[in-house]
Amino acid sequence: TGGGAALLDPSDTVFLLLDHQAGLFQTVKDITVAELRSNTVTLAKLATLMKIPVITTASEPNGTNGPLMPEIHEFAPHAVYVARKGEVNAWDNEDFVKTVRATGRKTLIMAGVWTSVCVAFPALDAKLAGYNVYAVMDASGDVSEMANRTTLARLVQGGGVPVTTNAVLSEVHRTWNRPEAREIGELYGHVSPNYAAVVESYGKAQEVARQSN
Amino acid sequence: TGGGAALLDPSDTVFLLLDHQAGLFQTVKDITVAELRSNTVTLAKLATLMKIPVITTASEPNGTNGPLMPEIHEFAPHAVYVARKGEVNAWDNEDFVKTVRATGRKTLIMAGVWTSVCVAFPALDAKLAGYNVYAVMDASGDVSEMANRTTLARLVQGGGVPVTTNAVLSEVHRTWNRPEAREIGELYGHVSPNYAAVVESYGKAQEVARQSN
Amino acid sequence: TGGGAALLDPSDTVFLLLDHQAGLFQTVKDITVAELRSNTVTLAKLATLMKIPVITTASEPNGTNGPLMPEIHEFAPHAVYVARKGEVNAWDNEDFVKTVRATGRKTLIMAGVWTSVCVAFPALDAKLAGYNVYAVMDASGDVSEMANRTTLARLVQGGGVPVTTNAVLSEVHRTWNRPEAREIGELYGHVSPNYAAVVESYGKAQEVARQSN
Amino acid sequence: TGGGAALLDPSDTVFLLLDHQAGLFQTVKDITVAELRSNTVTLAKLATLMKIPVITTASEPNGTNGPLMPEIHEFAPHAVYVARKGEVNAWDNEDFVKTVRATGRKTLIMAGVWTSVCVAFPALDAKLAGYNVYAVMDASGDVSEMANRTTLARLVQGGGVPVTTNAVLSEVHRTWNRPEAREIGELYGHVSPNYAAVVESYGKAQEVARQSN
Amino acid sequence: TGGGAALLDPSDTVFLLLDHQAGLFQTVKDITVAELRSNTVTLAKLATLMKIPVITTASEPNGTNGPLMPEIHEFAPHAVYVARKGEVNAWDNEDFVKTVRATGRKTLIMAGVWTSVCVAFPALDAKLAGYNVYAVMDASGDVSEMANRTTLARLVQGGGVPVTTNAVLSEVHRTWNRPEAREIGELYGHVSPNYAAVVESYGKAQEVARQSN
Amino acid sequence: TGGGAALLDPSDTVFLLLDHQAGLFQTVKDITVAELRSNTVTLAKLATLMKIPVITTASEPNGTNGPLMPEIHEFAPHAVYVARKGEVNAWDNEDFVKTVRATGRKTLIMAGVWTSVCVAFPALDAKLAGYNVYAVMDASGDVSEMANRTTLARLVQGGGVPVTTNAVLSEVHRTWNRPEAREIGELYGHVSPNYAAVVESYGKAQEVARQSN
Amino acid sequence: TGGGAALLDPSDTVFLLLDHQAGLFQTVKDITVAELRSNTVTLAKLATLMKIPVITTASEPNGTNGPLMPEIHEFAPHAVYVARKGEVNAWDNEDFVKTVRATGRKTLIMAGVWTSVCVAFPALDAKLAGYNVYAVMDASGDVSEMANRTTLARLVQGGGVPVTTNAVLSEVHRTWNRPEAREIGELYGHVSPNYAAVVESYGKAQEVARQSN
Amino acid sequence: TGGGAALLDPSDTVFLLLDHQAGLFQTVKDITVAELRSNTVTLAKLATLMKIPVITTASEPNGTNGPLMPEIHEFAPHAVYVARKGEVNAWDNEDFVKTVRATGRKTLIMAGVWTSVCVAFPALDAKLAGYNVYAVMDASGDVSEMANRTTLARLVQGGGVPVTTNAVLSEVHRTWNRPEAREIGELYGHVSPNYAAVVESYGKAQEVARQSN
Repeated sequence: TGGGAALLDPSDTVFLLLDHQAGLFQTVKDITVAELRSNTVTLAKLATLMKIPVITTASEPNGTNGPLMPEIHEFAPHAVYVARKGEVNAWDNEDFVKTVRATGRKTLIMAGVWTSVCVAFPALDAKLAGYNVYAVMDASGDVSEMANRTTLARLVQGGGVPVTTNAVLSEVHRTWNRPEAREIGELYGHVSPNYAAVVESYGKAQEVARQSN
Repeated sequence: TGGGAALLDPSDTVFLLLDHQAGLFQTVKDITVAELRSNTVTLAKLATLMKIPVITTASEPNGTNGPLMPEIHEFAPHAVYVARKGEVNAWDNEDFVKTVRATGRKTLIMAGVWTSVCVAFPALDAKLAGYNVYAVMDASGDVSEMANRTTLARLVQGGGVPVTTNAVLSEVHRTWNRPEAREIGELYGHVSPNYAAVVESYGKAQEVARQSN
Repeated sequence: TGGGAALLDPSDTVFLLLDHQAGLFQTVKDITVAELRSNTVTLAKLATLMKIPVITTASEPNGTNGPLMPEIHEFAPHAVYVARKGEVNAWDNEDFVKTVRATGRKTLIMAGVWTSVCVAFPALDAKLAGYNVYAVMDASGDVSEMANRTTLARLVQGGGVPVTTNAVLSEVHRTWNRPEAREIGELYGHVSPNYAAVVESYGKAQEVARQSN
Repeated sequence: TGGGAALLDPSDTVFLLLDHQAGLFQTVKDITVAELRSNTVTLAKLATLMKIPVITTASEPNGTNGPLMPEIHEFAPHAVYVARKGEVNAWDNEDFVKTVRATGRKTLIMAGVWTSVCVAFPALDAKLAGYNVYAVMDASGDVSEMANRTTLARLVQGGGVPVTTNAVLSEVHRTWNRPEAREIGELYGHVSPNYAAVVESYGKAQEVARQSN
Repeated sequence: TGGGAALLDPSDTVFLLLDHQAGLFQTVKDITVAELRSNTVTLAKLATLMKIPVITTASEPNGTNGPLMPEIHEFAPHAVYVARKGEVNAWDNEDFVKTVRATGRKTLIMAGVWTSVCVAFPALDAKLAGYNVYAVMDASGDVSEMANRTTLARLVQGGGVPVTTNAVLSEVHRTWNRPEAREIGELYGHVSPNYAAVVESYGKAQEVARQSN
Repeated sequence: TGGGAALLDPSDTVFLLLDHQAGLFQTVKDITVAELRSNTVTLAKLATLMKIPVITTASEPNGTNGPLMPEIHEFAPHAVYVARKGEVNAWDNEDFVKTVRATGRKTLIMAGVWTSVCVAFPALDAKLAGYNVYAVMDASGDVSEMANRTTLARLVQGGGVPVTTNAVLSEVHRTWNRPEAREIGELYGHVSPNYAAVVESYGKAQEVARQSN
Repeated sequence: TGGGAALLDPSDTVFLLLDHQAGLFQTVKDITVAELRSNTVTLAKLATLMKIPVITTASEPNGTNGPLMPEIHEFAPHAVYVARKGEVNAWDNEDFVKTVRATGRKTLIMAGVWTSVCVAFPALDAKLAGYNVYAVMDASGDVSEMANRTTLARLVQGGGVPVTTNAVLSEVHRTWNRPEAREIGELYGHVSPNYAAVVESYGKAQEVARQSN
Repeated sequence: TGGGAALLDPSDTVFLLLDHQAGLFQTVKDITVAELRSNTVTLAKLATLMKIPVITTASEPNGTNGPLMPEIHEFAPHAVYVARKGEVNAWDNEDFVKTVRATGRKTLIMAGVWTSVCVAFPALDAKLAGYNVYAVMDASGDVSEMANRTTLARLVQGGGVPVTTNAVLSEVHRTWNRPEAREIGELYGHVSPNYAAVVESYGKAQEVARQSN
């Protein structure tokens, strides 16, 4: 059908989760911290479920930027953490780029805090280096809505593909006709708490219908 | 005059209404459900009025995503429903793509829930396959305003033409100088409830003027 | 139980729907015209269903204020229309006050455009005259959100009870344990389009459950 | 009918327009400067039309607070300007209070910049001194929406009646059945630019109807 | 010191959690579903921690209103569920009022969906019946921000005390100088995800300081 | 200096003001009607001041779309009105395109209601026909902010240059060092009422300084 | 004149600045941290300028709530800090209440984080104890706009006077006719950065006028 | 690593700060004046810290546009001011372009008021002239959010790189592993007041940890 010709190939994909740190979270104003963490956790769980590599890193986690949010490694135990030596741009760090290259994969799904810096800098560099680059705008955060809109434009200008967490979810699993369908359904409840309530209502409605049979 | 050289040709056009389902509606946050449904109904009625083919589909309608909104087939009785087998991306489904191809038309006007997934995936694939692709942003819905803005950028990046329902209406009928003018006027009242009130005021003002003559 | 001691008594209640006119609707900025009309229709249908008297009136309907929205009398055929003679405040009009008095009821549920004028003026006068007065803030409309907030304060200062349409609905029917339960459910779908989708999903979920039994 | 028992009596009313100054306008964030000036002009014109006294004053108009907006005295040539001697609260100024008392009227409709200071201070003092006090929230301005809401509460706490310009308009003219009806209609076009467009549409619709007769 | 003379007495307090149901959640527009649930869970955990009785109830949970959110009874296992017989107003239900009375406590902290109905009706009735009534506005939900503001005014008019979840938390524990301090700290992280990040940063900063000693 | 190489040439420019009609104004939701009219008037005055041709047109002005706003021809008496025969897209109308061509100018500054239709259709067609096309987003209006954002993207995709009224003002006059400086200053007061207040304050400050000399 | 009869008496006034702490600031969502700090600094400077006592306190400043913002004591060196022993409500702390009483003043102007807790609790207690209580809503902060509105209602219900920083400024100095006029002008520039720019423009305009003389 | 291949080179960079004037500030509506000034100061301090040239200019500073904000030259004493002769577009001014050329640098980071004029005009001209052009959207200001979004699109269309102040900060210093790390940390506190509070909390937490050792 040509279906998916314009979409990513999960077997060629790595998740790069960049600088999701407690201190930096306080500066985020384009999304609530609760949603930002929940979307990031969704990516971590998705990667684990679909066996996609995850690379994490942090910017000066012993300093004021604060510790990495622990949920990523909790829900993606296979994630590899790469320490940096002060570089703001992860792509400036040799170990980080090496770790990315070592996966042999060419599609990078990036998210982080700030979108305009920790995501945009390596995204633009990686695109120039020949990678297929996705930026997950709502698993990232920035200092204002204006910063979000501005960075969206810069990323697209540089050839990056802008997405949101729910689109990544769908673009990775692509069909409900697979064994992980139930777990995937739960992940949609993460990106949309209303969907979780839909699922609860659905279960109850069926239970009532069955009991009244 | 060269008028319309940059616009769509209704005789080459198909409407694809994708996954407008009751469960998914609960997750929509970039437009109210009332407006989303009203805009979608407008497209269905317009297609019927102007004799444009409509193809619908749904993602797992027996599951938590919920049933298709019934108004589409009610107001576009000629619409063809294509069942999918779990594929998130309608363009992954052979029957769907076949049904599109069978129309022999090359301009696809797409709307659906979520914009970032159910619209964007087939839109990007169809564009790559040579179709002229329109995405109706306000007959579609997504989990956040950020998702709407992000998807708008991705669609444009892929060559899709972003529109809203009122523009589709105008781009299809193109002139008031046609027998369906009154019905079209009513459709504008759907996309703008204020316009419906304008029409009511106009009628009353004329009635008063005639009576006082 | 003392339940309802602080609530209204439907058998003592009249609905006063004031100046819901097409021209005035254009000036409303604190609610969309679609929601305003939908909420007003809900009150009309509720009155019919629960056999509560309705009195309507309009301010200069032959002039620029425009015609009364026709849905009220369509859905509440028992509603009584009282013509005014130019008075802005319906309570200044003898026929109107007489019609209210003739009902013998002492609880007035008022809605109209503008909240600050067409609702507030008769509401404050009626309260002073000994009536129990409710103002339905979202079946009314005003020129700004600031006007809405300001009027809310003035109404409360004068002893009026501020409510929204969904609360009126519940305060009138009070229990699901009555023959009109299904129709009432539909009315909730008017004040909340998301609730209508919940009902659709529920029906489908039960249908699927029954079929799979 | 008891109509108007709870409303103001125009023959007992004075308008106090306080510190509508160009420098202070820059600090206003709860309403646009265009709307603030337009509403203030509306009050000035209304006073002239209905022959209601107007008293203006300014806070240090030779200093950074800036000059009084000239439209007030332009459209209400009968307005009396009272100079102050540095007092922030106009009620602290002997001349001002004397000028108010000299009118012999007991209902004061106040507006000014800032609502929380230039309106609230004299409003609370005047109320304590036995006056009937109205505060026109949208012919006044303040440094934030929070300041507007906070001041609304303080004014009501002190017994002031909170209103918006459109309500003052209606509360003063009370009926369309008067010679000034056309001029009053124009004033509604000031408080609601959409109403002005309604009037234009109405005139045109009638003209078309008459011509086609 | 007179400290707390104006505040609630936890030993006289009961939590009433009313109609937090999955179907109704879809209609809530004045707060996100995620925040609403998180705040409600906070109350449940607080009640358990501080040994305060909890009474829950649901409106037609087998119907479209949907099942009660399971977290309440999960985190407050001592909560007592009272089934209703169709009454919208819990105070209309004899069992419910009896269960409240049986606690012997006179301060009722209420939350639920909708604020304007499921909270306001029993709140106003209970106040009239002599109870001290608190309404937790952000552990409740309603169909619009306007409904929230309108109901706030109605509740205050009836003598109810309006609060938010963070205030309930503080008003119940009153001092950090108690054994449950750590658990309480965690609850603040529920009502403010930013506070949870503050706690993470604090721990890391101290760990770094200690290691560098 | 190369200054202006990327900017428009006023001597090659025509203003096309499309369908600024009273009925359509009621449907505009991305800008207030007051601002939309004020910006349009600014363009009309600017064209007159700088001797730039203006072409106006209207869509079915005898019908519900309503009459053209009279200020355009009032303030740009040299403007040429072209009647259409029912075409929605002005570029479909032979007379209109002829009138544009007859000016011999190749830069078209367009504004109108709706942006997505009355501006976008001729803009895209004219661009394809070799014109340099500007779209003035805030002298135009559309049914929602989403429609504005969507149309902005479509216009840019088609090669149109998106601008706002203040930018047109500056791009046309280019220097304050010209005889019309005072009139231009007044036009800035139209696009920014705060600027008008700045001018008032400035004048007063200088007057005070001179008097105290 | 009776001027000020309804206003506070600065010689009877104390400022209570409660829990303005770096950790708590991260949880504030009803005002930006920059504005909150700037308004608080304004109060500190005002107190110093007008010789009004200031009492500060903090809630567990060695813990996660974080250190007191240093600017208060920097700009109000006469401020007295009272340590608490874990009490959330400052009025529960004996030393705090003693320090307040020792001033012999009966008007308390309170601000702090959170408004709903650190301000509302002592405000309600102090009011009950006979004090005249002001709450400065924008020198305080809370977890949501809803919390701000809810607390405003609760404070007014308990007899507290709600104000904003600019009103406190004006209510304290009352006249420009005093030696501190220039310093006071600067404080207005703190509560309104636009006012600071007005002052800059004013000075420049006068300088230009004088030079051109 | 290829790190920074897509980023700017500070040694090739000049900052152009255009028309940050007190009068123009009053017209800015897409960002607060406080944030606009703070971001501009950040750029000035960054330039000084990293020894990057700064060129400033003003549009008719003796007229109503008002004086240049003094902080720029205060914090970037090395900045060169270029007077203009009435040109709106700085690139129209020979001295300005000469001064830019004289730096020998090819990357221009521009900010100013208005974004759509004072930034966009020279940005588009400079890009055409072969420069690498950055526009700092939040150290600039415009008359509306719509103007900001419109200009963002125009700048990108012309090849300009859109950024925000925090991204410029990061793109210039690139690593924390440098002597200026502490000063840079302070600059982040300027663009994010929440970050400044993070730093305060961090310091206190470490101090407490060390004291308790």
